[in-house]
Amino acid sequence: MVNWSKPRLPRPDAPRTRPRVAPTELTRIDFTEVVPDQVAFLGQAAYIQLEFFESLAKAVATAPDLGAKEGLSAAAGVALRKHHELISELRRLGEEPSEVMAPFAPATDRFRQATSGADWTELLLGIHITSGMLDDYFSRLAEGMPAELGTRVRAVLAERDIAEVVERELERAIAADPTLADRLALWGRSLVGDTLLVARSALRASESTGALGADVEPVFTELIASHTRRMDALGLTA
Amino acid sequence: MVNWSKPRLPRPDAPRTRPRVAPTELTRIDFTEVVPDQVAFLGQAAYIQLEFFESLAKAVATAPDLGAKEGLSAAAGVALRKHHELISELRRLGEEPSEVMAPFAPATDRFRQATSGADWTELLLGIHITSGMLDDYFSRLAEGMPAELGTRVRAVLAERDIAEVVERELERAIAADPTLADRLALWGRSLVGDTLLVARSALRASESTGALGADVEPVFTELIASHTRRMDALGLTA
Repeated sequence: MVNWSKPRLPRPDAPRTRPRVAPTELTRIDFTEVVPDQVAFLGQAAYIQLEFFESLAKAVATAPDLGAKEGLSAAAGVALRKHHELISELRRLGEEPSEVMAPFAPATDRFRQATSGADWTELLLGIHITSGMLDDYFSRLAEGMPAELGTRVRAVLAERDIAEVVERELERAIAADPTLADRLALWGRSLVGDTLLVARSALRASESTGALGADVEPVFTELIASHTRRMDALGLTA
Repeated sequence: MVNWSKPRLPRPDAPRTRPRVAPTELTRIDFTEVVPDQVAFLGQAAYIQLEFFESLAKAVATAPDLGAKEGLSAAAGVALRKHHELISELRRLGEEPSEVMAPFAPATDRFRQATSGADWTELLLGIHITSGMLDDYFSRLAEGMPAELGTRVRAVLAERDIAEVVERELERAIAADPTLADRLALWGRSLVGDTLLVARSALRASESTGALGADVEPVFTELIASHTRRMDALGLTA
């Protein structure tokens, strides 16, 4: 129960044991200063989800067993739902999704090919790393959108079912073949550059509205920090 | 409204203008005589929907434009939902879907490869013809299942959104390139044999329960008749 009447007293020993500014606060940035062009934002985000769907569908088709197929097909369904929900937002704004997404297609297609790897495990890690980073990133960008739209978009992007399924399959594959860890660690590192390029391109779409004044570099630091946590969780050196 | 009290009187002029047995009745068969092995039936039907999903996902990935991608990705979502609904029925029966589907995987994978064609339009026609015939066929087979389960399964298979989307894209492609019609007509004819083999294998799974006494040949005649209608609707010679 929340106690509304009693004033919260500062605990006297707290300030001495923690730094004045917590490390996470150092890298925080007020993304509400960045006002993304809503339409371009939604178009790029929707098209990226379509690419995640295509990668997951490929992972279903090439899965080594039916258990993996089942989990991954459910994950593909989630990516598809995200795509269609973002498309619905475009329709709600009176936009034709195909037209809005078209400018993002060539670069995003290339991105998917570049991150789809040489085999099934690399494909899975590609999905895990790129969707993890980009969903985080677009969620942060959505903070600068009109409140209701921003909240809906963040709810769409917050669904974590894909990450859970892909992580489970990767853990299983690494456990079955420990020599995989070194190769996947290398592959995981190589994915970061391409993913940050996509993130930067989303910022450029926002800059074109002339509303971008904030220093966004710290956000990239955040993205890389969560990337490291994602790799650590799989026992891979980031 | 159905009139239960009044006996139906034969109309005196009817017998002279129509054959004693209407052609459609000739090919009707009481599929309630065929009692399919529920578990095997659901396993094969579920795996086939997964294959349709994979083919549709491939059609999304190779679609020539974003409008086609959008429609086909929705269709892929429908196939995925059918797959997951049939899997849920297996779980409800206390079965592990992966184990039940496994025996059907090799033949169904080969079937998908054999029917996926040489380009995007052949892939689409392959999906249209094979899913049209097999959804019809499994719906008929489901008539022999326990009433509630059979009704649910038939409702799952009755969804026609995939056919609509695929038909629209095929019509568009044929309109844009009239030389396509001859090649697709030939391709459509070649799909029938493989599809009937899959249908027959479903019957064999039922026969193994020892409950199959009916002559099912007329059902295949029905399947071919609806195939012809499907081809006609696209202006293709069956």
